[in-house]
Amino acid sequence: MERDRTRIGVIGLGNMGSAHAGYLARGEVPGAVLAAVADCAEARLGWAREQLGEGVRTYGSAQELFDSGEVDAVLIATPHYAHPDEAQAAFRAGLHVLIEKPAGVYTKQVRQMNEAAAASGLVFAIMYNQRMNPLYRKMRELIADGELGELRRINWIITDWYRSQSYYDSGGWRATWAGEGGGVLMNQSPHNLDLFQWITGLMPSRIRAFCGFGKHRSIEVENDVTAYAEYENGATGVFIASTCDAPGTNRLEISGERGKLVAEDGKLTFWRLRESEPEFNRTYQGGFGAPEAWRIDIPLAAGDPQHHRAVTRGWVDAIRTGAPLAAPGEEGIRGLELCNAMLLSAWTDGWVELPVDEERYVKALQERIAASSSRKDPEAAGVPLEGKGTP
Amino acid sequence: MERDRTRIGVIGLGNMGSAHAGYLARGEVPGAVLAAVADCAEARLGWAREQLGEGVRTYGSAQELFDSGEVDAVLIATPHYAHPDEAQAAFRAGLHVLIEKPAGVYTKQVRQMNEAAAASGLVFAIMYNQRMNPLYRKMRELIADGELGELRRINWIITDWYRSQSYYDSGGWRATWAGEGGGVLMNQSPHNLDLFQWITGLMPSRIRAFCGFGKHRSIEVENDVTAYAEYENGATGVFIASTCDAPGTNRLEISGERGKLVAEDGKLTFWRLRESEPEFNRTYQGGFGAPEAWRIDIPLAAGDPQHHRAVTRGWVDAIRTGAPLAAPGEEGIRGLELCNAMLLSAWTDGWVELPVDEERYVKALQERIAASSSRKDPEAAGVPLEGKGTP
Repeated sequence: MERDRTRIGVIGLGNMGSAHAGYLARGEVPGAVLAAVADCAEARLGWAREQLGEGVRTYGSAQELFDSGEVDAVLIATPHYAHPDEAQAAFRAGLHVLIEKPAGVYTKQVRQMNEAAAASGLVFAIMYNQRMNPLYRKMRELIADGELGELRRINWIITDWYRSQSYYDSGGWRATWAGEGGGVLMNQSPHNLDLFQWITGLMPSRIRAFCGFGKHRSIEVENDVTAYAEYENGATGVFIASTCDAPGTNRLEISGERGKLVAEDGKLTFWRLRESEPEFNRTYQGGFGAPEAWRIDIPLAAGDPQHHRAVTRGWVDAIRTGAPLAAPGEEGIRGLELCNAMLLSAWTDGWVELPVDEERYVKALQERIAASSSRKDPEAAGVPLEGKGTP
Repeated sequence: MERDRTRIGVIGLGNMGSAHAGYLARGEVPGAVLAAVADCAEARLGWAREQLGEGVRTYGSAQELFDSGEVDAVLIATPHYAHPDEAQAAFRAGLHVLIEKPAGVYTKQVRQMNEAAAASGLVFAIMYNQRMNPLYRKMRELIADGELGELRRINWIITDWYRSQSYYDSGGWRATWAGEGGGVLMNQSPHNLDLFQWITGLMPSRIRAFCGFGKHRSIEVENDVTAYAEYENGATGVFIASTCDAPGTNRLEISGERGKLVAEDGKLTFWRLRESEPEFNRTYQGGFGAPEAWRIDIPLAAGDPQHHRAVTRGWVDAIRTGAPLAAPGEEGIRGLELCNAMLLSAWTDGWVELPVDEERYVKALQERIAASSSRKDPEAAGVPLEGKGTP
């Protein structure tokens, strides 16, 4: 194996892991080479031997791969619960880590992973590929530059995560508390939860959320969520996610003292106030008037539509050159914190302050696992699915 | 005074009442004639004598007008609290009634008004002029015809009710618990609260709401509201209203088993599923697929842009010919019920079941009136305002 390229191992060859292994094997990440893969299913390793080329070693467990000495860095694409333990084992083996989202299922395990990452000095990233999307990057840039002034309202209707019963039935672990630890918040919308805080630069101070569990579907986890958030600066937010709306909506509106941004249908519109609202309000004497607003179509940069590859490239660059990461692994805890707060609020029918009480959350989750009436076999292998998964 | 036309009295000559008196005096309501007006302010009666013509009698109180024998019907456009008492006094005098919105400030007084209306046998209407808007009429028609199937989600961001501090300062009664009994829910968005239930044909079973009181403004009532609603059929709703967003948004999205309607920028778009979602879900086996949806621009009828006049015309028609009302007065309690439930939920920081406990609401409102620190003089006369008020 050549040593002038960073040798990558991929852990888990499900929908996402096999895609990562594919573009790495095709040499689409400069400076990196796919050196090895690991999966507990022999059938998937057989696929790897056939499809990924002879130079790629195969291992029946993550630990064997970590211990092999054949890789410098690992991309972990196993089920959510496993990410923190496997990442920590990789750090112990001296390996750089890129984990798939979500960072984990509860913040306690993710905090421990983050502490291990910090102690290791290794490069730790998370597959928040939507941070590479020019639309969301531009929103973040405009807000960070002060174009909206102080933020006042954040409203995301992100209900275009349609999943049929056949999707849920395609794998025994799917949509169970024991298997995935959550539903639409844990599986489909972790990117949106990350962007909700990454674009705005704000974490809520408290959350009140309402969840439908198994709504219009035979599953036990949440698949319909309406969450209300309050922020320290007085702003409020609403986050609505669902897997049973057809067709769903993806509309993100963020308003502040100086105007309003709306992202919908892949377009970004900015209503810019000539004079900030507080200044107008302070000086205007006429009664019914309102600040003058200009409607602006914001130009968006062409971006690499292969966001996953772009994250992997950035991670490899960080390993090789020390370039900063677009999505440091330690930041995965933020979206998960929002997810945990929303579920805990729905379970307890009350407010949840942030940061979430991590012990309370683990206890509440374990109660749901213990009480689960899911008759699915969590060991059952998944079946191949048509179409695409979480982008 | 000629008797072949219905003789109308207008009670209250503020912003709305003077507008109603104006089009009635100009003969813009067939079959009706403006016979009299009443207002407690002599200056406004002077305006009436100058502007409305010599045939229009003027009275210093509503009761004098009711007792005059000069009118057959009255349009009541006084402050909100007065609507139910004045309507009941009018019914006792044998007069048909059209009240401005809201029907009143709390449901107990409005229920009593409704009972008096029913007992009187007179024609009772409410100025829900937005029910004449072709956009909202079409949404209601499509839903009533079953085009969406069973409803699942209702989401209205109706934040384009900007009001500056100068608006609030323009009248001593404005934005006080004693003077108006509420803020954006009571003054600016009663039409939206009515349409929220009229378009869908659904009242929520319970509501959880979050209000900012005096947010970015020196007032004591709510001017920023996020409300979550649950319905008996499992549907959920979100209603967001504000007077401090600039520019605000008016976007109403309603989705159901057969598709989605979105009203924004005066346009109505229907995403129609070829096969209903429940049927697709029952039969589809492919995993990630979703029902095929067709995007349709719904044509809207040209309507009378003078919605107020249209409501008054319909009321006069109902008096003269027995034609059905677009907005029966008795239905005013529904939007008020939503308003009261939202305020009570915010005050008590908890769920409110519908119908609202009317005694509990009155008590909670009285506590706020008693605790009011408003330094405004509630007797102070208003000043004329630029621009337009609630459409």
